[in-house]
Amino acid sequence: MSVADIGEFGLIARVTARLDPGRASLLGPGDDAAVVAAPDARVVACTDVLVDGRHFRRDWSSATDVGHRAAAANLADIAAMGALPTALLVALCVPPNLPVEWAEGLAEGLSAEAAKVGAGVVGGDMSASPTITVAVTALGDLAGGSPVLRSGARHGDVVALAGRTGHAAAGLTVLSRGFRTPKVLVGAYRRPEVPYLAGPAAARAGATAMIDVSDGLLADLGHVAEASGVAIDLRRDAFEAPRQMSDAAQALGVDPYDWMLTGGEDHALAATFPARVALPDGWRPVGRVGVGSGVTVDGQPYAGPPGWDHFR
Amino acid sequence: MSVADIGEFGLIARVTARLDPGRASLLGPGDDAAVVAAPDARVVACTDVLVDGRHFRRDWSSATDVGHRAAAANLADIAAMGALPTALLVALCVPPNLPVEWAEGLAEGLSAEAAKVGAGVVGGDMSASPTITVAVTALGDLAGGSPVLRSGARHGDVVALAGRTGHAAAGLTVLSRGFRTPKVLVGAYRRPEVPYLAGPAAARAGATAMIDVSDGLLADLGHVAEASGVAIDLRRDAFEAPRQMSDAAQALGVDPYDWMLTGGEDHALAATFPARVALPDGWRPVGRVGVGSGVTVDGQPYAGPPGWDHFR
Repeated sequence: MSVADIGEFGLIARVTARLDPGRASLLGPGDDAAVVAAPDARVVACTDVLVDGRHFRRDWSSATDVGHRAAAANLADIAAMGALPTALLVALCVPPNLPVEWAEGLAEGLSAEAAKVGAGVVGGDMSASPTITVAVTALGDLAGGSPVLRSGARHGDVVALAGRTGHAAAGLTVLSRGFRTPKVLVGAYRRPEVPYLAGPAAARAGATAMIDVSDGLLADLGHVAEASGVAIDLRRDAFEAPRQMSDAAQALGVDPYDWMLTGGEDHALAATFPARVALPDGWRPVGRVGVGSGVTVDGQPYAGPPGWDHFR
Repeated sequence: MSVADIGEFGLIARVTARLDPGRASLLGPGDDAAVVAAPDARVVACTDVLVDGRHFRRDWSSATDVGHRAAAANLADIAAMGALPTALLVALCVPPNLPVEWAEGLAEGLSAEAAKVGAGVVGGDMSASPTITVAVTALGDLAGGSPVLRSGARHGDVVALAGRTGHAAAGLTVLSRGFRTPKVLVGAYRRPEVPYLAGPAAARAGATAMIDVSDGLLADLGHVAEASGVAIDLRRDAFEAPRQMSDAAQALGVDPYDWMLTGGEDHALAATFPARVALPDGWRPVGRVGVGSGVTVDGQPYAGPPGWDHFR
């Protein structure tokens, strides 16, 4: 059964039935707009779009996988401000001949990923399009705290990381070479494991800057260094490829540090903390903030592939 | 110069330079997420997506027109809850060979339309895609009031309308027949004139139900009737085609009431008010709420074209 068979309102009914609006929802889907609690009189908001054939392939990821990943990309941006995600809105464009089950699976993935932090899907829109497009907006709550910007890193701060890097990139390389295993890597690409609560925890602990690692650690720390007017140096020995990653790297002829330092889409969080701060649970030190500009590894420029540009 | 020539970050910089984040913005574009004021500890949120070839044609609308219309569709949904729009977020998908000027014009249109209500564009995302897709999310502020739902219409209420209906549909028909005039109709299609402030005014006056007219007046009042468990009857003599519309209708062989009663995308607001309420400025009575179900005109079903289904 295709989307065209059941029509716009039929599709909305089926998808909405799979959504949980979450605990911050004061008014969920079904009216002209939703209403979401914003307890401290501010709301954090971001949007991130996934396009078929560019951000995902339907032969590499199930619809539910794509839902998880679309939600994760947005929820991680909220967490990287030091906020707790409260709600998602989803604009979904699909071709009329798409099986209804695909849209249902997507909704299930979105809702399940949001539920990890108690958030829900409160609204959306649907349209026909030749290109499957999933545009998600996430809202979040700072709980009275200050947002943690990219621009606050200071000379002498510790650079710390929460979550994994390189797993999703390794999984994507594995898939692109025609393999389906190791599962730990492929699964990391399909459904990133994002340390959402590490974001608000870092904010409470006094993080001076924070960012979601979506373009690769070096590229994203480059944004922090530029916005803060500082240099960042990472210690290579703070990164160690787990055995399955190093085995896959060897089999595929890849340097695993390329995955860990330049691979995106695990949605780890990177932050800087004053040296006196005890890092919160889930954070580990990986480098230092210094005077100057740019990002180095053990004091040297990293000669790996550059970050991702969507138009090149 | 194409989008691919300047790359993702170049495009973001050029587009962001054309955006005003508006008065509710506490943190605008450039970080992982924006922060927007939500003064009464709630935020109204909706999302609406426009797809090239389906919601607009680049030979019928300029990029700036498309920006105005994408913003208007979302801002009108916020107004239809009785809220004042505060901010927009925009996910934009474009083919790499698109001229940069098109994206810049879009940003100018979005920002200019939002500025009409003091709102601004606080964030967004961009991706390459074969299909130009503009997914907008709007946020709004209820200023302490209750949201006006679709479900509150009661027997005996007056049905009232703020803004125009049929103008955008007439303009679209004119364009689709290969004409470029009359300008008042074509212009209404390209840049709808939405009575944004009539939404919060209706809420303050005690409107019992409200909806944005985007699918056609009969179809959208059908949503109100269904959600409220009531019948709605419109008076045909409450609608009169302005001369240019009646002339165009005659020339094109169309019944102008089809445009006024079933045409969408002017983003008028329709609401129901208790009979004792003096209608606020900008609202005019067009019908009555009764017992039963469905929407009639002078007591009879309207035998015009049905509402729009995006997948059929």
